[in-house]
Amino acid sequence: MKVARFRIDDEIAFGVLDQAEDGAGVEIVELSGDPMVAGYATTGRRFAFTDVQLLAPVIPRSKIVCVGKNYADHVAEMQHVTGIDGGAPEEPLLFLKPNTAIVGPGDAIVRPAVSERVEHEGELAVVIGALAKNVAEDEALKYVFGFTCANDVTARDVQIKDGQWARGKGFDTFCPLGPVIETDPDLSDARVVTRVNGEVRQDGRTSQLIHSLARIVSYASEAFTLLPGDVILTGTPAGVGLLEAGDTVEVEIEGIGILRNRVA
Amino acid sequence: MKVARFRIDDEIAFGVLDQAEDGAGVEIVELSGDPMVAGYATTGRRFAFTDVQLLAPVIPRSKIVCVGKNYADHVAEMQHVTGIDGGAPEEPLLFLKPNTAIVGPGDAIVRPAVSERVEHEGELAVVIGALAKNVAEDEALKYVFGFTCANDVTARDVQIKDGQWARGKGFDTFCPLGPVIETDPDLSDARVVTRVNGEVRQDGRTSQLIHSLARIVSYASEAFTLLPGDVILTGTPAGVGLLEAGDTVEVEIEGIGILRNRVA
Repeated sequence: MKVARFRIDDEIAFGVLDQAEDGAGVEIVELSGDPMVAGYATTGRRFAFTDVQLLAPVIPRSKIVCVGKNYADHVAEMQHVTGIDGGAPEEPLLFLKPNTAIVGPGDAIVRPAVSERVEHEGELAVVIGALAKNVAEDEALKYVFGFTCANDVTARDVQIKDGQWARGKGFDTFCPLGPVIETDPDLSDARVVTRVNGEVRQDGRTSQLIHSLARIVSYASEAFTLLPGDVILTGTPAGVGLLEAGDTVEVEIEGIGILRNRVA
Repeated sequence: MKVARFRIDDEIAFGVLDQAEDGAGVEIVELSGDPMVAGYATTGRRFAFTDVQLLAPVIPRSKIVCVGKNYADHVAEMQHVTGIDGGAPEEPLLFLKPNTAIVGPGDAIVRPAVSERVEHEGELAVVIGALAKNVAEDEALKYVFGFTCANDVTARDVQIKDGQWARGKGFDTFCPLGPVIETDPDLSDARVVTRVNGEVRQDGRTSQLIHSLARIVSYASEAFTLLPGDVILTGTPAGVGLLEAGDTVEVEIEGIGILRNRVA
């Protein structure tokens, strides 16, 4: 099932995607609340998918946890390109982004004046569906609501200068999410591809994750109580690179959709 | 004015501290909403201060921004004790804690099983009162709602091992806040003292901050949109040290109050 958050006529609501009744096109079935906390009761209203404005499918009330260095080929490129220590950590390396960084599909990524090197990092994001604390790896995926596409936009020069990554990865607009949350994708070997102006820049597969999705959720829950709506970005494959004004960047994950943003 | 958040009879409310009408003791005047967003309308109810349970005075809906290395004597001790690069940064060094780390006055700090070295860091915390983005230094304090005491509890071994500080400083219970928010303290040279079992461990003054409060708010607002209720921890003086089971740790800031927590 694909869950969206959308705006229509100045109202914001959640919905689920459905085939139109006449078989032509996709509609959004409006939900009466946030399905991450209130289930799937519907309002009875349906809208043509093309009539609504999609928003980021979730704004965490608590946190965005990110995992660094979780694809071997990206670990290697970071060592060579930036001098950042390139060892793949035995445990997931966690950091945080603030929820003020989130934007939705179609929104602009705004490059801050203090950076001359803003880069894309296309990633699979996990959306938490239930309070999770110290959950075992073999239970962890039960606490997941679904999955979406994310762009862990990074001011590489600020990241390197600070050493701590919060600012370089936390600027406003630096966490595009969407277009929808897929609650049950096949992620055994899904393609995670990032394109800039149509050209493939990053091309990984979820089967290449160093730390599995279950491991990441379990590990994060050992550090932090995870709450419904919390988002975990699972790391980026090799091929990170510059975003310039006027670029269009897309993160596409097989079975989920395409997150498309322009660069201002 | 001192603003508190409190529980009474299973209800949670905000209030302001006031002299009891008979002149004996302190009372809490209950507010009808969150004063950071809804002003100071009262419900007409008053409670004896001793009858309520104080809670953390704010739970940010967005973020806790922290400043590292902001007292010169602490910068020096970190270099010697931990090997963490000891230079005082020309710009504030920002990192984030998740709101799930917050506990209130009297709550327990729980040492996670993965750490053998949990330490206190008593700090002055700024509470934001209005949306702030790219605010100039000479305007920055207008966006501040008030100030409270914070303990930037840190699993030093995890902090050092990860390199990124989010996990070592982000465990549940690692951000005690309180006891109240003082909206107008004199912070030109206020004492910031941390005691463990009554013994002074850290003893600084706000006049020793490397980056001023106005500078910190302005700088943070250049990276992140600050929202009402966001909290900024402004750094810790020298003297950080171990917390062990059964300890009582107090952070006292002149003009604000004493934040007291026990260690589990």
